[in-house]
Amino acid sequence: MTLDATLEQIDHGLDASLDRLLSFLRIPSISTDPAYAGETRKAAEWLRDQLRDLGAEAELRETPGHPMVTGRTGGPGRSILFYGHYDVQPVDPLELWDSAPFEPVVEAGADGRVIRARGASDDKGQLMTFVEACRAWKAVHGNLPGNITFLFEGEEESGSPSLIPFLEAHKDELTCDLALICDTALYRDGQPGIVTQLRGLLGEEIIIRAADRDLHSGSFGGIAANPIHVLTRILAGLRDETGRVTLPGFYDGVPQLDPVLAAQWDGLGFDAEGFLGAVGLAQPAGEQAYTPLEQIWSRPTAEINGIRGGYAGAGFKTVLPAEAAAKISFRLVGQQDPHRLREIFRDWVRAQVPPDCSVEFHEHGASPASQMRIDDPAFEQARQALGAEWPEEAVFIGAGGSIPIAGYFQSILGMDTILAGFARHNDQIHSPNEKYDVESFHRGIRSWARILDAISGA
Amino acid sequence: MTLDATLEQIDHGLDASLDRLLSFLRIPSISTDPAYAGETRKAAEWLRDQLRDLGAEAELRETPGHPMVTGRTGGPGRSILFYGHYDVQPVDPLELWDSAPFEPVVEAGADGRVIRARGASDDKGQLMTFVEACRAWKAVHGNLPGNITFLFEGEEESGSPSLIPFLEAHKDELTCDLALICDTALYRDGQPGIVTQLRGLLGEEIIIRAADRDLHSGSFGGIAANPIHVLTRILAGLRDETGRVTLPGFYDGVPQLDPVLAAQWDGLGFDAEGFLGAVGLAQPAGEQAYTPLEQIWSRPTAEINGIRGGYAGAGFKTVLPAEAAAKISFRLVGQQDPHRLREIFRDWVRAQVPPDCSVEFHEHGASPASQMRIDDPAFEQARQALGAEWPEEAVFIGAGGSIPIAGYFQSILGMDTILAGFARHNDQIHSPNEKYDVESFHRGIRSWARILDAISGA
Repeated sequence: MTLDATLEQIDHGLDASLDRLLSFLRIPSISTDPAYAGETRKAAEWLRDQLRDLGAEAELRETPGHPMVTGRTGGPGRSILFYGHYDVQPVDPLELWDSAPFEPVVEAGADGRVIRARGASDDKGQLMTFVEACRAWKAVHGNLPGNITFLFEGEEESGSPSLIPFLEAHKDELTCDLALICDTALYRDGQPGIVTQLRGLLGEEIIIRAADRDLHSGSFGGIAANPIHVLTRILAGLRDETGRVTLPGFYDGVPQLDPVLAAQWDGLGFDAEGFLGAVGLAQPAGEQAYTPLEQIWSRPTAEINGIRGGYAGAGFKTVLPAEAAAKISFRLVGQQDPHRLREIFRDWVRAQVPPDCSVEFHEHGASPASQMRIDDPAFEQARQALGAEWPEEAVFIGAGGSIPIAGYFQSILGMDTILAGFARHNDQIHSPNEKYDVESFHRGIRSWARILDAISGA
Repeated sequence: MTLDATLEQIDHGLDASLDRLLSFLRIPSISTDPAYAGETRKAAEWLRDQLRDLGAEAELRETPGHPMVTGRTGGPGRSILFYGHYDVQPVDPLELWDSAPFEPVVEAGADGRVIRARGASDDKGQLMTFVEACRAWKAVHGNLPGNITFLFEGEEESGSPSLIPFLEAHKDELTCDLALICDTALYRDGQPGIVTQLRGLLGEEIIIRAADRDLHSGSFGGIAANPIHVLTRILAGLRDETGRVTLPGFYDGVPQLDPVLAAQWDGLGFDAEGFLGAVGLAQPAGEQAYTPLEQIWSRPTAEINGIRGGYAGAGFKTVLPAEAAAKISFRLVGQQDPHRLREIFRDWVRAQVPPDCSVEFHEHGASPASQMRIDDPAFEQARQALGAEWPEEAVFIGAGGSIPIAGYFQSILGMDTILAGFARHNDQIHSPNEKYDVESFHRGIRSWARILDAISGA
């Protein structure tokens, strides 16, 4: 019956929970932009204070970049690590936002109220579902269930450079029986999913340089190497006409989909048309030989995420630029080795750089794909707990995104992660007008109370 | 002997001439950026006042964009139109400037003093050589030679949208026996050239759009069309491996080089290695079947001048952008028709836009190549006058750059232009740290006094 009391506490406290989330969203913790370093730290301090409210021993832990926030409650029962990230993506193009990204508002959406702000969904709104569930639990029980450790990172949106060293340096402190992460989406409206496989990520930046200065295309056009041409020629060759990545050996370690899993995924009735239609698209543009779900969950990709070179502002400038640059990410699956692929990619680029040009590389993260061992009973307990909260029963699914930490928890701390999240596919994370449904927030808090009740052994 | 008196006057007045140029350079007249519209107008007013000092009836003439400045002196003798432009290129990347672009300084350069500022060479410093020659002439003679009309434009660096309508509306006022323009470079150090053929220019901007918002490359990578991929694939196909432009019909109207001209150009002893070496390059990157001089003077080109898409700032953002864009210019020769090529280019792009993507085009100027009829004796008179001023005799040359107005003077006003300029190839026009040699400025002023003396019939 104490679960019911906790759920009731959550319902009564929803407005206060929302107020706390809005305070958190007002802090522009853009980790990738050094101009926001101070604000990013403020977000960490804000979270630390939340954990102290829960009775946890909480503190900021310095790293070469943004600090980690940790908290421990101690106590009997199963040991659980909850992870979230308090940093957010940049907001450009700012002109496409309908309201200021760091002045959150709760407003009417197409189907219910939404919280609109950068980070509303990814990951501030989502991580606060767990923190608020704990707050309600404590209000009812006087303390938290099980033995909970909190770990909040401030560099998830900028490649997590401090994460591996931190995990390795604090293995004993951070290793628990199980990890929980709230940074994924509902499988579909009304139906939660637990992600049991995630794609890995390899991030690379290449800068092509030619002349030692920008040149006038009248004086030098036709005779001087143009780095934008060189860059476009290289990038254009990254995928063939069928969507297949052309790097030699790229598909080594990519498994064919297990028939049992394939049958499960078929049973999900994935609506590719609706998924693409929601963002103005109509046709799967990936490898034509694979189903839409495979294209986003179990097939690797190469995507250009950014490109720049020369003058791209208003008007026109007849310049041959000294350099051009692009950022490229690869989503990885199965046993693809990000470090080996980085070298393959760089060799492949170098082989195409013509005379008079040079190339420089910068790395932006490398994490393998990961797969959970769902024979731990907690996975089925969590699935049932979610089903009790939402209109439809929860399903085990794949995810196209990379949550490298789930892989590191396996490889460094030897623990699996239950990835349950309440975002919707129309949350526009990483885009202008990001939002989080109030229903996601509310049911999300209730979901964690149910999961804690089911798995913590309290 | 009055020529000698004028030259002496120029020598004595050099410091005052420099001071006036520095005042002009302090006005940030960046025509392509609407934020500088007010400053651009100030530059026009400043020039108008200079012309009034010369006794010309001078005024600002409104256009839909930046104003024209015109001035007339009347008087007997040959009628001459002098054209220059008072607008300048943008200054980015600002961090590569060693001094502020609009705080001009006169400083020691590698070989003599230089004036350093945006526009020091292109075209403020150059056009002021003519204005200062007139000022000295007037000081000695009391009035200007011949019958001079001045025309200064403020949109040359942004596609000259108002130019053709203005020329057409004021044909009678502007048509003279001959035009003079000072916006070109010395053929080489110590040796001036008169440009008798210029490449034309076609400017195009293409914007590729896919989803109706930026997407997360985790959720959508592999299934959603990526406009940067589409753009790079299209642009990569613009030239083949030999440097040849692949647009169908692109080479229609491109003449083979006349054997007489080819022999003349061979006689120039063009130092391609030195030309490229000065900017950190070593190998001609254009059509391999043509000489370096042909690559820059008589062969057409396709160059990408700018590209943008996704997140290209510090750090990394795993975004699939909603759009990607590029600016492309074609240098044209012979009878290539820019309007026809614009349509060919657009059709060629449209045919490559895949499902779920759209393309938008913006035009940025279209001017054909031009060729002067040098049987007018003024050309040879000017060549000899230049030879008297500089260490080496002047030569008739080609130019890779586009000075569309020289073509319009032919097609609309029926007059040829003597293009004589004193820039050096290391002036870094359109680049950070633009400069103009004090020697170019000084000898440039003296050169115009000599040319006016030779051709004005004074």
